[in-house]
Amino acid sequence: MGSSNILATSEYSSVVSMNLFVALLCACIVLGHLLEENRWMNESITALVIGLCTGVVILLISGGTSSHLLVFSEDLFFIYLLPPIIFNAGFQVKKKQFFRNFMTIVLFGAFGTIISFTIVSFAAIKIFKRMDIGNLELQDYLAIGAIFSATDSVCTLQVLNQDQTPLLYSLVFGEGVVNDATSIVIFNAVQNFDLSQITTAVAFQLLGNFFYLFITSTLLGAGAGLLSAYIIKKLYFGRHSTDREVAIMILMAYLSYMLAELFSLSGILTVFFCGIVMSHYTWHNVTEKSRVTTKHAFATFSFIAELFIFLYVGMDALDLEKWSFVKDSPGTSVEVLIWWAGLMRGAVSMALAYNQFTKEGHTTMPGNAIMITSTITVVLFSTMVFGLITQPLVRLLLPMPKNLSRMISSEPTSPKSFIVPLLGNGQDSEIDNVPRPSSLRMLLSTPTHTVHYYWRKFDNAFMRPVFGGRGFVPFIPGSPTEQSVHQSAHHLVDEETSQTTGH
Amino acid sequence: MGSSNILATSEYSSVVSMNLFVALLCACIVLGHLLEENRWMNESITALVIGLCTGVVILLISGGTSSHLLVFSEDLFFIYLLPPIIFNAGFQVKKKQFFRNFMTIVLFGAFGTIISFTIVSFAAIKIFKRMDIGNLELQDYLAIGAIFSATDSVCTLQVLNQDQTPLLYSLVFGEGVVNDATSIVIFNAVQNFDLSQITTAVAFQLLGNFFYLFITSTLLGAGAGLLSAYIIKKLYFGRHSTDREVAIMILMAYLSYMLAELFSLSGILTVFFCGIVMSHYTWHNVTEKSRVTTKHAFATFSFIAELFIFLYVGMDALDLEKWSFVKDSPGTSVEVLIWWAGLMRGAVSMALAYNQFTKEGHTTMPGNAIMITSTITVVLFSTMVFGLITQPLVRLLLPMPKNLSRMISSEPTSPKSFIVPLLGNGQDSEIDNVPRPSSLRMLLSTPTHTVHYYWRKFDNAFMRPVFGGRGFVPFIPGSPTEQSVHQSAHHLVDEETSQTTGH
Repeated sequence: MGSSNILATSEYSSVVSMNLFVALLCACIVLGHLLEENRWMNESITALVIGLCTGVVILLISGGTSSHLLVFSEDLFFIYLLPPIIFNAGFQVKKKQFFRNFMTIVLFGAFGTIISFTIVSFAAIKIFKRMDIGNLELQDYLAIGAIFSATDSVCTLQVLNQDQTPLLYSLVFGEGVVNDATSIVIFNAVQNFDLSQITTAVAFQLLGNFFYLFITSTLLGAGAGLLSAYIIKKLYFGRHSTDREVAIMILMAYLSYMLAELFSLSGILTVFFCGIVMSHYTWHNVTEKSRVTTKHAFATFSFIAELFIFLYVGMDALDLEKWSFVKDSPGTSVEVLIWWAGLMRGAVSMALAYNQFTKEGHTTMPGNAIMITSTITVVLFSTMVFGLITQPLVRLLLPMPKNLSRMISSEPTSPKSFIVPLLGNGQDSEIDNVPRPSSLRMLLSTPTHTVHYYWRKFDNAFMRPVFGGRGFVPFIPGSPTEQSVHQSAHHLVDEETSQTTGH
Repeated sequence: MGSSNILATSEYSSVVSMNLFVALLCACIVLGHLLEENRWMNESITALVIGLCTGVVILLISGGTSSHLLVFSEDLFFIYLLPPIIFNAGFQVKKKQFFRNFMTIVLFGAFGTIISFTIVSFAAIKIFKRMDIGNLELQDYLAIGAIFSATDSVCTLQVLNQDQTPLLYSLVFGEGVVNDATSIVIFNAVQNFDLSQITTAVAFQLLGNFFYLFITSTLLGAGAGLLSAYIIKKLYFGRHSTDREVAIMILMAYLSYMLAELFSLSGILTVFFCGIVMSHYTWHNVTEKSRVTTKHAFATFSFIAELFIFLYVGMDALDLEKWSFVKDSPGTSVEVLIWWAGLMRGAVSMALAYNQFTKEGHTTMPGNAIMITSTITVVLFSTMVFGLITQPLVRLLLPMPKNLSRMISSEPTSPKSFIVPLLGNGQDSEIDNVPRPSSLRMLLSTPTHTVHYYWRKFDNAFMRPVFGGRGFVPFIPGSPTEQSVHQSAHHLVDEETSQTTGH
């Protein structure tokens, strides 16, 4: 008896697997913490390894039929796991750094992805036809190009440190977000358009579509953020309840993502810019306790969602059903692996691959199975190898600006010529006082600095009086805490607001 | 185009309804805030009214076919919505008050529920047979008794204030938790046992089962809480990452709930005691920022989950498919309503009713439809009427102890004799300095006070050295925040820890 009978409608096995999954997540956190001293490891790698080990155990117990606990659906990924990760990314990013390098980021992100997509697709057509793997259509080759153009910023950022290397962090991170969005746009274009006859008209239509998507998604996200800021400022939410402030921030952010999905926009871009606007305005309008809560709660959601993805990928890597197809032609799939292993792929790649190659519920076509196993292996290999290498590499290469600029581009196909005009000397008048190598300042570019200057003027004159923001003191009669907000709010999100100095 | 195509596998309509639902949740929060000045309203009532209005709109748009956006499944309720509500309840409850009145709470909760169950079941058999409503079996009558024995603490507590009336709050609240657990135990017993021939052996078996459930569930919850406290204290989690501390607390609490479900225990009791133990030990072992985060994040989850439930019940109340069956015999269902309206029911009742009467996916039997519509109406009516009345009633009755003790029992059938021996004078040496009417102290009982005294000795001598707890200062070298923890941690969870006085 007991309340488990209420769950009788859902299967008993799903309760077992949920238990095991949550327990494994706990194990990942504890092990990740213990391995923190070991600078080469991180939670992503720990989760992958634990996932692999669990996969082996499940494989042995089930007698070789399956290696994973839950069936990975794109819905799970795109509705529950991705939004908190991307929102938190926008919420925690150092906005000054990010926007100052906005041009560089868009160049790396959008153009780099398009170039990468073209090269990967062409190479896939050439090599696959020569190796004679299954029967893939033109659409499939282009999908492969799109899948492997999505870089994984999540994993890279776990080894980078936002405080130690703020510029590198914001470049890699921003590039990752724009890159993800671009590759999703390309992927959808590949699925929807008839690409057997590409004319210039279609190409322009695609380009127009991309800009339309980019602009509307950004505006939607910014709009949702501004609305939340306005509501909280205008109605003095903190007067009655801290929880209400936090709840409305979470719900508005999620609403912006779901609205973007509803209107066929890029949910990733929307929720990312919603996060940026919320951290710039809304976060400053709420009570001090809400600030601490939102900052850490959003980071925690994101952290759990990431762990979940890596744990799953680790488990799914051993799915025999898929590998059995590969057995028939082992030589060719190894070749495919090595060729892709040079790129750093992640969770978005996985989701796109599952979407493209498991249309009829399960992977029955040998060609499709090879695609999925290859994707898994590339994600696995690149996460572990590059994850282990990145940290020492950053320490080795950071003082040298020339090597750094090569490091910044995680896209090997990005052309060097785009970087050169952005390497001019920028003024360092507004750089925040985070200690870092002076050579990094050389990367600041003058044009974006001017844009930033006018934005600040506009922000102070028009936006802040309406939407609040840094320095806004919510009116709460007789509350001593709120009087100290003015002092503690002098720095942005990265500031530790709970340390109010006495009054 | 855009990433919406990735959601193509899930239906377009479900994205629309999710959008609408999240938008309505936002509206509930904003309206609830605006109506805060109005002491008679609260968020539950707002959500119910908004749900009703939305139901009308959907009904008009859909041409009278349906009034709700999402299909309510017990899984949704018992896996996602209930755990955060109950965990937060345990986490935020004033432990001293709760355990001092533990006996009273168990008496009200367990015995009150059993008495209520017996009376409601017998009355249902008598009245229903006379009114000739559908063909219900004995099991159904007993299920009705169990369903309407589950009181809704969630709604009652929204109008009570933990700081203004701490004793009343903890009694009503604790009674609600024990009551929920008891009614779920009874409900499961009704569903599983062959109750056509009740012998004393079966009765004792049921009683034994109840105590077994109560004790094992409590131990599991306490064990999970202690494990989390031990891990965080022993491994100095806060040294590296605040998010990891919060993540492991969330995951361990959820794991305890899922484990209870797995082992057929009462998940509600487990996660409730896990919350209590976590707030007593774990919460004091984490960094200051994690404390603020967990306190408010858990409250926010709980808040959103509650709103979700009330919004849904409001919408579902207008489902024509169910009401059309009632039309055939309007007189009898009104009589049923009035008879039940004297009791205060809520979300748990709803979930149990759905579970019992929608076994074949949809409500096709007229008798079942009447049961569900009646349950909805009772929940609706009691939430709105009693929700509006409670706040003024408390203010009116509070200074008089005799009326108060009647107020405390939300169970009209609870016998008075149980209360009398607990009304003796207790020592007030350890009462915290919250201002309240002195007459309330009369309710403190001497025996529970003695137990509390020995528990404190045991806690200080054995538990705290191992599991941390109040006054535990995590070792973080060179962190000025952590040195102030000692000052700010002098009070329990209800203390506002972010207001550290200067150093």
